[in-house]
Amino acid sequence: MRWQTVKCWDWGTDMSDTKPIRLGMVGGGNDAFIGAVHRIASRIDGAFQLTAGALSSTPEKSMASGAVLGLDPARTYTDFEAMALAEARLKDGIEAVAIVTPNHMHYPVARAFLKCGIHVICDKPLTSTLEDAQKLVAAAEDSDALFILTHNYTGYPMVRQAREMIGNGDLGDIRVVQAEYSQDWLTEPQDNKQAEWRTDPARSGAGGSVGDIGTHAFNLLSFVTGLETEALSADLQSFVPGRQLDDNAHIMLRFAGGARGMLWSSQVAPGNENGLRLRIYGSKGGIEWEQEEPNKLWFTPFGEPKRLITRGGAGAGAAANRISRTPGGHPEGYLEGFANIYAEAALAIRARQTNTPLPPEVVFPSVQDGLIGVQFIQACVTSSNKNSAWTSL
Amino acid sequence: MRWQTVKCWDWGTDMSDTKPIRLGMVGGGNDAFIGAVHRIASRIDGAFQLTAGALSSTPEKSMASGAVLGLDPARTYTDFEAMALAEARLKDGIEAVAIVTPNHMHYPVARAFLKCGIHVICDKPLTSTLEDAQKLVAAAEDSDALFILTHNYTGYPMVRQAREMIGNGDLGDIRVVQAEYSQDWLTEPQDNKQAEWRTDPARSGAGGSVGDIGTHAFNLLSFVTGLETEALSADLQSFVPGRQLDDNAHIMLRFAGGARGMLWSSQVAPGNENGLRLRIYGSKGGIEWEQEEPNKLWFTPFGEPKRLITRGGAGAGAAANRISRTPGGHPEGYLEGFANIYAEAALAIRARQTNTPLPPEVVFPSVQDGLIGVQFIQACVTSSNKNSAWTSL
Amino acid sequence: MRWQTVKCWDWGTDMSDTKPIRLGMVGGGNDAFIGAVHRIASRIDGAFQLTAGALSSTPEKSMASGAVLGLDPARTYTDFEAMALAEARLKDGIEAVAIVTPNHMHYPVARAFLKCGIHVICDKPLTSTLEDAQKLVAAAEDSDALFILTHNYTGYPMVRQAREMIGNGDLGDIRVVQAEYSQDWLTEPQDNKQAEWRTDPARSGAGGSVGDIGTHAFNLLSFVTGLETEALSADLQSFVPGRQLDDNAHIMLRFAGGARGMLWSSQVAPGNENGLRLRIYGSKGGIEWEQEEPNKLWFTPFGEPKRLITRGGAGAGAAANRISRTPGGHPEGYLEGFANIYAEAALAIRARQTNTPLPPEVVFPSVQDGLIGVQFIQACVTSSNKNSAWTSL
Amino acid sequence: MRWQTVKCWDWGTDMSDTKPIRLGMVGGGNDAFIGAVHRIASRIDGAFQLTAGALSSTPEKSMASGAVLGLDPARTYTDFEAMALAEARLKDGIEAVAIVTPNHMHYPVARAFLKCGIHVICDKPLTSTLEDAQKLVAAAEDSDALFILTHNYTGYPMVRQAREMIGNGDLGDIRVVQAEYSQDWLTEPQDNKQAEWRTDPARSGAGGSVGDIGTHAFNLLSFVTGLETEALSADLQSFVPGRQLDDNAHIMLRFAGGARGMLWSSQVAPGNENGLRLRIYGSKGGIEWEQEEPNKLWFTPFGEPKRLITRGGAGAGAAANRISRTPGGHPEGYLEGFANIYAEAALAIRARQTNTPLPPEVVFPSVQDGLIGVQFIQACVTSSNKNSAWTSL
Repeated sequence: MRWQTVKCWDWGTDMSDTKPIRLGMVGGGNDAFIGAVHRIASRIDGAFQLTAGALSSTPEKSMASGAVLGLDPARTYTDFEAMALAEARLKDGIEAVAIVTPNHMHYPVARAFLKCGIHVICDKPLTSTLEDAQKLVAAAEDSDALFILTHNYTGYPMVRQAREMIGNGDLGDIRVVQAEYSQDWLTEPQDNKQAEWRTDPARSGAGGSVGDIGTHAFNLLSFVTGLETEALSADLQSFVPGRQLDDNAHIMLRFAGGARGMLWSSQVAPGNENGLRLRIYGSKGGIEWEQEEPNKLWFTPFGEPKRLITRGGAGAGAAANRISRTPGGHPEGYLEGFANIYAEAALAIRARQTNTPLPPEVVFPSVQDGLIGVQFIQACVTSSNKNSAWTSL
Repeated sequence: MRWQTVKCWDWGTDMSDTKPIRLGMVGGGNDAFIGAVHRIASRIDGAFQLTAGALSSTPEKSMASGAVLGLDPARTYTDFEAMALAEARLKDGIEAVAIVTPNHMHYPVARAFLKCGIHVICDKPLTSTLEDAQKLVAAAEDSDALFILTHNYTGYPMVRQAREMIGNGDLGDIRVVQAEYSQDWLTEPQDNKQAEWRTDPARSGAGGSVGDIGTHAFNLLSFVTGLETEALSADLQSFVPGRQLDDNAHIMLRFAGGARGMLWSSQVAPGNENGLRLRIYGSKGGIEWEQEEPNKLWFTPFGEPKRLITRGGAGAGAAANRISRTPGGHPEGYLEGFANIYAEAALAIRARQTNTPLPPEVVFPSVQDGLIGVQFIQACVTSSNKNSAWTSL
Repeated sequence: MRWQTVKCWDWGTDMSDTKPIRLGMVGGGNDAFIGAVHRIASRIDGAFQLTAGALSSTPEKSMASGAVLGLDPARTYTDFEAMALAEARLKDGIEAVAIVTPNHMHYPVARAFLKCGIHVICDKPLTSTLEDAQKLVAAAEDSDALFILTHNYTGYPMVRQAREMIGNGDLGDIRVVQAEYSQDWLTEPQDNKQAEWRTDPARSGAGGSVGDIGTHAFNLLSFVTGLETEALSADLQSFVPGRQLDDNAHIMLRFAGGARGMLWSSQVAPGNENGLRLRIYGSKGGIEWEQEEPNKLWFTPFGEPKRLITRGGAGAGAAANRISRTPGGHPEGYLEGFANIYAEAALAIRARQTNTPLPPEVVFPSVQDGLIGVQFIQACVTSSNKNSAWTSL
Repeated sequence: MRWQTVKCWDWGTDMSDTKPIRLGMVGGGNDAFIGAVHRIASRIDGAFQLTAGALSSTPEKSMASGAVLGLDPARTYTDFEAMALAEARLKDGIEAVAIVTPNHMHYPVARAFLKCGIHVICDKPLTSTLEDAQKLVAAAEDSDALFILTHNYTGYPMVRQAREMIGNGDLGDIRVVQAEYSQDWLTEPQDNKQAEWRTDPARSGAGGSVGDIGTHAFNLLSFVTGLETEALSADLQSFVPGRQLDDNAHIMLRFAGGARGMLWSSQVAPGNENGLRLRIYGSKGGIEWEQEEPNKLWFTPFGEPKRLITRGGAGAGAAANRISRTPGGHPEGYLEGFANIYAEAALAIRARQTNTPLPPEVVFPSVQDGLIGVQFIQACVTSSNKNSAWTSL
């Protein structure tokens, strides 16, 4: 076993109060993928303890799922509003809730818990409509509780490394951004439950691939570069007959300050599993990162040999090391990156509870980021409907 | 988010009893890398709850580490034998213990808990001497408790995939095995604590790189191929002046049935972080796997195009899917692989407690595997001392 | 040395007449990169013999360059029109001419030789203006001589493999094309000769990166997919202050039949040397190819493991094997791909001279392909000037 | 097209005399792979002109092959001794001969030409027996003519780069060498002509894979590191029933000064096409190079990010640039590397003919290197027959 002085996220080392945060969950009945991911992410560092849930709107399913997860039946709910009210009254009620429902439920569920002062950790995209997104921003502003959006890819250490390097000016002025998120699981018509709601405008929103994954790519490029998107030109397609939402999208981007970008999202690209990829070029150098090999970051200063920076290895800086759990060469993956959002949430929640200022290095996607993401989806649909006219966000 | 019907290891789905197993830990005071890894691995699936510990032999350190980890002070020990006896007497005492001390302590600690009927999950290598290894095998045989050795790399899904394919005959008769485990952290003299005990024969055993990492590579090739090693020829070196144990080792292997192999272990190979790599060739095809890209397995049937099998993707079989948590393209890493050993341990412990037969697909490294590993280390040292004479295990 | 029955392009094996074709060259004085490339490409298979040249318009330079190349001083010219006339009159005059001048000279030079019945092998893009391109098409149609355009990347065996597979329907209906050509050599202002004419509209044409490299990517995607481009939307940028032509271009494409594409060309992307890359996805599968690793082609049939097809290896078909010179694993490169265009040209010239029908597998970029390339450049500039309005070719 | 001031090997630029060297060939009848490779390599830079040949010992085959290659029938021979004598007498007789026969003929053919003062370019390994090798060294020493051995892999620019860096001390003291050369074409019994003589001890020599490819790997590691091999321990296998020579070999190496190495050669490793790979580690850093991606060299200074040095790109030094023909990103391959040996040979021949001192940067494998190669093969066989006893070269 190789040893390096990489900071290890083991429960307690960053916490003065060593008791786990009591967590509730809405959605995530036992056959839902993303619910299981949130639960694992919340457990890895021991910072949360799942304590209550409204895992399904069907009573029997909710109770069965709760039992499997070891929940107290008294704290297994079917109605999220009842859950919010009941937990808020308990002395040891939940301190935070994870929302892992289909998109159209994000707003009403989040509102209910925010009203009760319970911190919200919510899956992306923020909402299924722009109107809901704006109302949710207002609800979050009106609440003392925190709102954390799980744009989980911002939790990868080498994504933080890229962001830090760009912030430090290592790339010079950013000129070109190439972002893409390609999958293949919708290449043929699907009839499983996951595909069903994702391709239904009523539950998913106006965007198909754009809403499901394009928004991740957009969030990631914004997070890493700090660039503000002024306008986009989009050409959306639905290649599979009968599909109501886009399954492939071609987008050109114009950023404040003159940088330009392209973004490709696709769920009909055979051979692509989860191909989120970011390439950024500036006047002094470039970086390249791929989600499927998340521990590596290419840095290419102009006129010098390419450098491969590895998580936990030489060249990794403070922002990446802070959220690394293992030394270089011991790969971290999707779940650790997701867990980093939960770890940041834990730090933020404890800070809020203790009226302690949050250190500036603790970062996580906010409700504002979520609003911009929904604006992005909306602008893509609008532009595409106008024959790719440049459209402001 | 891509959806596939990959089996997800979320707590409860494989367990009839949903209460976590109560776990103790010996060693792993709060600045030790491997202790933190074991704790995370035990937490990921929610199958264990850390409940007691003798985290350090220094009283203040043990108490301080216990407090950080949220342990009850009454169950924070400094003496592992006292801990074993006390916990065995408690009604809700620990059901299993994780041993994460330096190698020379594995035997006495394991013996103490095995005697008390507490299941043991022990870091590798099994012991620092062959004599201790043989005594530990006897102690495990005398106990009703289970012994699980954390040769964690056997927990990677694509390692299981390789094993399954070879078992199915996809490679034909195995002819050639190329194994290597290369690191660079001992390229220069080290003075940190991790390096200190690993390069001290009294605490680490007779092998340096051979004992620390070579034994992992050897265990892995044995696990994947099922081949029995008959003899080896080794040439061990200590390149850094003053180092007492090997930091680089060249080994040739002869297997029962006629296959041959090479194994290289090194901790002085600059640029190699954790380069465990396995390549196996048979009469019909080959496979290649690298720990630093654990979600990929190359399969090269002779006379056909190379195929890249991905975890969670097309071509992955039952053995790999069973221990996958996320769909293809969502990379799993070192901690998930390690957690799979804990998950297997949990299944085995619950089966033992309920007198249920363990399904054949549940596999983990045993005390016998540990003995063979120590024999391997010993044979390397012996052969090298005899000018690389072929030496039986 | 590995042996496989790969067809080897050694001089004579495809030729009934074993005498090399007498070749002239216009441009390519001894310090010009592309001239040297054409000469090597013409020599590799022994199918051409450089016999005459107007290597420079400066008399001393032309004579000096000719001497270095071993040309007869009597056949070293300064005026290309004089050369065309003189060589046409000679009994053993050149049979073909290679044109490697800056773009604006392609048309007048090609016209001169075509008029004299001398076959033309011309560098890309066809011309610097659309008007010239149309006139050159007419000139070629009026002549008995052949016109071959060195869009050299169509000469790579694995590009032919991709084309053959798509033609065979292995990918199903093509839906998405992702093409890119990224370089970094214009990241900073340049003052060398190569950069000078390439960034001067008078000599290079209206396109910068679009004309120099984007046209290669466009030609390649058209060649491989067989798709006809109906319209494009382009956003062109000049990032380096003072540059007259685009150094980065973002383009969306719409093809006849409904497929869509994106094309990125850049000469300001640090870390990219010669990053021509093509990814094509259909209803049944995908392919990926990169010029910097030209011997590999990824084929990803939907729902099956990824396959890596290698030049000369298993899976390579007739179209690729026909133009391979070495077995699998013995990498061929840029010069061999370029030489394949010359080899095809030699076959076509000999067939024309002997009134033999040209086998259908002999393919090379034509004057029509060149015209479409210039239309592409023009459409990019037009669209970008109209705020990325969709523009027909 | 990217431009960089990479030195381009176009005929004449390094030659004061621009007339090609007249070349003969022994062996290489038109269906032999390696003969075609030598011919292409000799043509790429225009530095040689094939003028005479004894392409086969069968008269009709020799005449037919000569005709295909455009040779004057008067200079197409069947008897190599007759050819040597006849050509030596001609005023414009060949200046050099390429020997591309099976191994057992290298010595008698080379001797015949060396006696006549004709320079010899000979395929590897030097001879099929150690005795022949020693006699050939003597013959070369007795002759005024040059002897160049085509260990072609030393002609790759990035191999020269590695050698230059090690010579400059960039890796510190070399400690560990990992060399391998893996193929798969002999995985199953073969009956083609290439396999036939290569697996016949009488024509190939005592080594199978060791002689055919292991000797390449050994030559390469010696060339790059400059290390002298003191002893080796080998375990040779013939996995395919009935095969007379080894098809897989495991070898440990000890070098003068204390460095150690491993060498694996195999022709039964499915999925490996031409897997020559070299990894070298020293006290300050490491390098890695693979023949199948010859334009890349990893350089890993200890404690710094990995660097990828590319041929023609940033970081490439004088030794590599000197023999590069194209800019970075325009891949060169096997034939260009082979051609570099011919280019060096041309420089050496012209220097010898003009009594000019050869610049120190011109390097090529010598008859002495060939002798060491045959000693290596012999030592492998001897060691393996003595149960892998350490054996001096």
